[in-house]
Amino acid sequence: MSQIRTDLAMESREAAGEIPGVEMKQMTMGGATVTRVTVLNQEGAQAMGKPMGVYITIEQSNLYEKEAQVTDELAACLSREIATLFHREKTGTALVVGLGNRDLTPDSLGPRVTEEVLVSRHILSQMPDMIDERVRSVCVLSPGVMGSTGMETGEVVSAVVQRIQPDLVIVVDALAARSTGRILTTVQVTDAGVAPGSGVGNHRGALTRETLGVPVIAVGVPMVVHASTILRDSMEKLMEKSGAKFDISVLLRDMDGANLVVTPVMIDEAVRNVASLVADGINGALQPDLTREEIHAMRI
Amino acid sequence: MSQIRTDLAMESREAAGEIPGVEMKQMTMGGATVTRVTVLNQEGAQAMGKPMGVYITIEQSNLYEKEAQVTDELAACLSREIATLFHREKTGTALVVGLGNRDLTPDSLGPRVTEEVLVSRHILSQMPDMIDERVRSVCVLSPGVMGSTGMETGEVVSAVVQRIQPDLVIVVDALAARSTGRILTTVQVTDAGVAPGSGVGNHRGALTRETLGVPVIAVGVPMVVHASTILRDSMEKLMEKSGAKFDISVLLRDMDGANLVVTPVMIDEAVRNVASLVADGINGALQPDLTREEIHAMRI
Amino acid sequence: MSQIRTDLAMESREAAGEIPGVEMKQMTMGGATVTRVTVLNQEGAQAMGKPMGVYITIEQSNLYEKEAQVTDELAACLSREIATLFHREKTGTALVVGLGNRDLTPDSLGPRVTEEVLVSRHILSQMPDMIDERVRSVCVLSPGVMGSTGMETGEVVSAVVQRIQPDLVIVVDALAARSTGRILTTVQVTDAGVAPGSGVGNHRGALTRETLGVPVIAVGVPMVVHASTILRDSMEKLMEKSGAKFDISVLLRDMDGANLVVTPVMIDEAVRNVASLVADGINGALQPDLTREEIHAMRI
Amino acid sequence: MSQIRTDLAMESREAAGEIPGVEMKQMTMGGATVTRVTVLNQEGAQAMGKPMGVYITIEQSNLYEKEAQVTDELAACLSREIATLFHREKTGTALVVGLGNRDLTPDSLGPRVTEEVLVSRHILSQMPDMIDERVRSVCVLSPGVMGSTGMETGEVVSAVVQRIQPDLVIVVDALAARSTGRILTTVQVTDAGVAPGSGVGNHRGALTRETLGVPVIAVGVPMVVHASTILRDSMEKLMEKSGAKFDISVLLRDMDGANLVVTPVMIDEAVRNVASLVADGINGALQPDLTREEIHAMRI
Repeated sequence: MSQIRTDLAMESREAAGEIPGVEMKQMTMGGATVTRVTVLNQEGAQAMGKPMGVYITIEQSNLYEKEAQVTDELAACLSREIATLFHREKTGTALVVGLGNRDLTPDSLGPRVTEEVLVSRHILSQMPDMIDERVRSVCVLSPGVMGSTGMETGEVVSAVVQRIQPDLVIVVDALAARSTGRILTTVQVTDAGVAPGSGVGNHRGALTRETLGVPVIAVGVPMVVHASTILRDSMEKLMEKSGAKFDISVLLRDMDGANLVVTPVMIDEAVRNVASLVADGINGALQPDLTREEIHAMRI
Repeated sequence: MSQIRTDLAMESREAAGEIPGVEMKQMTMGGATVTRVTVLNQEGAQAMGKPMGVYITIEQSNLYEKEAQVTDELAACLSREIATLFHREKTGTALVVGLGNRDLTPDSLGPRVTEEVLVSRHILSQMPDMIDERVRSVCVLSPGVMGSTGMETGEVVSAVVQRIQPDLVIVVDALAARSTGRILTTVQVTDAGVAPGSGVGNHRGALTRETLGVPVIAVGVPMVVHASTILRDSMEKLMEKSGAKFDISVLLRDMDGANLVVTPVMIDEAVRNVASLVADGINGALQPDLTREEIHAMRI
Repeated sequence: MSQIRTDLAMESREAAGEIPGVEMKQMTMGGATVTRVTVLNQEGAQAMGKPMGVYITIEQSNLYEKEAQVTDELAACLSREIATLFHREKTGTALVVGLGNRDLTPDSLGPRVTEEVLVSRHILSQMPDMIDERVRSVCVLSPGVMGSTGMETGEVVSAVVQRIQPDLVIVVDALAARSTGRILTTVQVTDAGVAPGSGVGNHRGALTRETLGVPVIAVGVPMVVHASTILRDSMEKLMEKSGAKFDISVLLRDMDGANLVVTPVMIDEAVRNVASLVADGINGALQPDLTREEIHAMRI
Repeated sequence: MSQIRTDLAMESREAAGEIPGVEMKQMTMGGATVTRVTVLNQEGAQAMGKPMGVYITIEQSNLYEKEAQVTDELAACLSREIATLFHREKTGTALVVGLGNRDLTPDSLGPRVTEEVLVSRHILSQMPDMIDERVRSVCVLSPGVMGSTGMETGEVVSAVVQRIQPDLVIVVDALAARSTGRILTTVQVTDAGVAPGSGVGNHRGALTRETLGVPVIAVGVPMVVHASTILRDSMEKLMEKSGAKFDISVLLRDMDGANLVVTPVMIDEAVRNVASLVADGINGALQPDLTREEIHAMRI
């Protein structure tokens, strides 16, 4: 019952129905649907399987397409939602952490985003005269994944946070969803940080205000649905309709063991475009006094 | 019934059962299972949905792993099966064509293999004294995919074949299978060439002895299972067990429309290793008078 | 004397001084310097070491930087100069050929550009209703390099040209210059096609109206200066000033043998930006009825 | 005089001649020349412009070629020299740090090497039963470069060292040499760590036993010669021979400003091969109880 594998709070809420301690609001902005799920207390957190906090999803079917106007609006919407979660605080250093494996396409969102974030901390600290005074101090980290580095992601991130002492951490990660319709069409933004065991690689430690000591905002995009999830969902519907019972656990176990995922064939191109969108959203939130053109020009 | 989407003749045969005009033999060699399906006549071809010819599959669960000894044996086995299909002819120019999209991981097998094939035609024709006389003339082509080039793959390949006049064409392609257990664990070798509409991208024209005018051997490895195939198979089993009926066509249509595939999360690394294995197999078949070490050293 | 290794007609003209049969005009447009060298007859061609034709160079020191406004103007300027060379002919199929080795950074300009050209020929021929009627038919080819394919570039290109029958061929190539100041700051456009032995890899056959049978426009950007060129130039200056003589041929031969080039450390990023600029220029020239935004949106 | 830009102690010694406080020994092993320069005291360090320590260079003209036997011997030689510097200590955790920019070919050696080092620390600490007891604990870090991350490399490395508490740090870096003949043909191993301002990107802080608190071994391979270095050397020779004087500082300043380097055209392939060689050398030094085949098999 609780084995639904999704990193989207919105899907947990849909699956669970009305829950005490959980609020949900929905609205449309331009072509996008914005859903805000608030997990108010421990009761809600338990029912949802997600820590307390605000979870915002922005859905738009053509999220990963490159048409200039669409992504401008979406990026602006994303910037607003991210900025809300850190109360539009304009000063202090932000550290953007890109989780995941750069060489594994469905897990590469985080590292790709960090490559497009406007980085300024080193110039502000070493050559402050060389940079526009409106620029906020930002640095980025791609800690890699445990299987490649031999270190837990949490070890690396918390060591760097302790040294750098940022005022805000933004963590970007590829997510697993429950519905194939949400792959590469939805962005989730939350102030609850990153929960252990989430993400495509399923290998993150917790990165939260509690573990890092500073506000942590997580931005994620579903890249895959676990093959077992899609099968379970379809078969449960089928059994419900037919009234029959069938033990599907063996089949599902095989699929989990092989770590099989459902993903669009064209994921490589889509992840590039979505990474640019997420980077634009983060840049806009962190640098509210710069225009998008100024940010692109500085990022050379 | 006939909507099974698989490029493996062996899976078509399994699905169809005993068919007149189709022979199947199986044996084990080392850790590998070698299956030889022969489609003898048009009746068999119709029943199988595959053109007449010999289809050999080599299956080994750890195909994509890198342990030296395993891949040496497998590569040698693959070389033997490929060489059988062109009757161990040792002279004449061979053109190795890598189908697929280099920038789309599950479709990148072909182009990756061509990067590792020993290329010699230009040296033999321009500086014959610079090269060992045991080396056979080989050239390679990665024609790209129609969506990227604006030209049908068949147009490009046949134009080059007409100009170069090779004595043999070997086409490498990523395949779709029916069973997730065959993803990256099976190699299919056939003298039937490449059928239209096969491959991961589902966009090939026919590349056969008929269309190209020279013998065409196709080497393929399943990289994905279409999400609709896996659902159809699972649900059919479920309906069979439960005796219930349910219209699953709508759900399947959605999945096909989005071109969703099931694939292992670690596909990027696996495709690199399998590409090396296939290249070793082709190099061994085309250069029977050279050792594997000599081929690697010449390929610098 | 004639050992100057440059692919830029403008540098040949500078080195040779006033030559009968060669005209040169210069003007500035925005921040760019546009130089037009016309080789009028065989006498001029001999003196220049370049075939007859019009050679236009566009120089701007920050060519490879990404600031939006700069590149918009430059791309528009490039589009105009390319379009002039094919007399603004708006119909017929264009084939854009990207010469060079995708995996060798200083030689990767051509293949990178083809990835960003708007490709339409397949849609216009197979699903004409799916595409805006203002779109011109364009296809692209990255033939690879002889060392990787075993085939001469000219063999592959002319085979495809013969099959596809385009009305215009645009060839993109990385060039060698004489002055380091021109690396990644200059674009050359010419209706003389590509001469044998030019390019970074020094391995092209001739691709011209004579060899291909259709108008051929070449677009090139200097990526390197041969180390021997830079040494020769510096030492000749030095010997001239000092009045001394010294045999520098041995040293130069070593450098040529090792194929050493001078290149900026940051070439990887610069080549990406310049490839986008060149693609924008070509797209603008080929699709005069579409805006830049429309082209980007269609290229998804 | 002291403006020679080389990261090779051996070249500093060659340029300076006999120096008190500096010892140099040379021998040949197989096809390789091994030179050991020991900077014994501060006087020697001053004269060399290099900190005290042992600097070993292994030179072999075909270092970057892939022929199996050659690289086996070279890797074994490299393993021995590295192991000598940490006194063949077989226990404790080693951290291998890959300096440089993965996306900038001549600066990408470090990150590429870390991808091929056998990583075991996470398995030894979390699932010790899953791994051969002969395996030593190793983890790796690619901290990126300041221009991309906004953090000094030293900040990131020392933060992680403090957290992980390794017993040994091995730092891998791309170097600048003085002679083009040493590009990609020489490996330098030293117990002096990495000096500030060295490397291709010229942007490292000091990574030494003093700054990190544990033994630091640096392994480096020359990837480039600064264009100004090659010009200065050639011109000085020329002036010497001719007896003339000439002010070359302006020319050199231009070249330095543009960060121009001399590099082989085929650097992309060579850096891949050399990265594999260096990784083999490090793996052999850190895992003396495993064969090379075992290491490759475990690294899957």
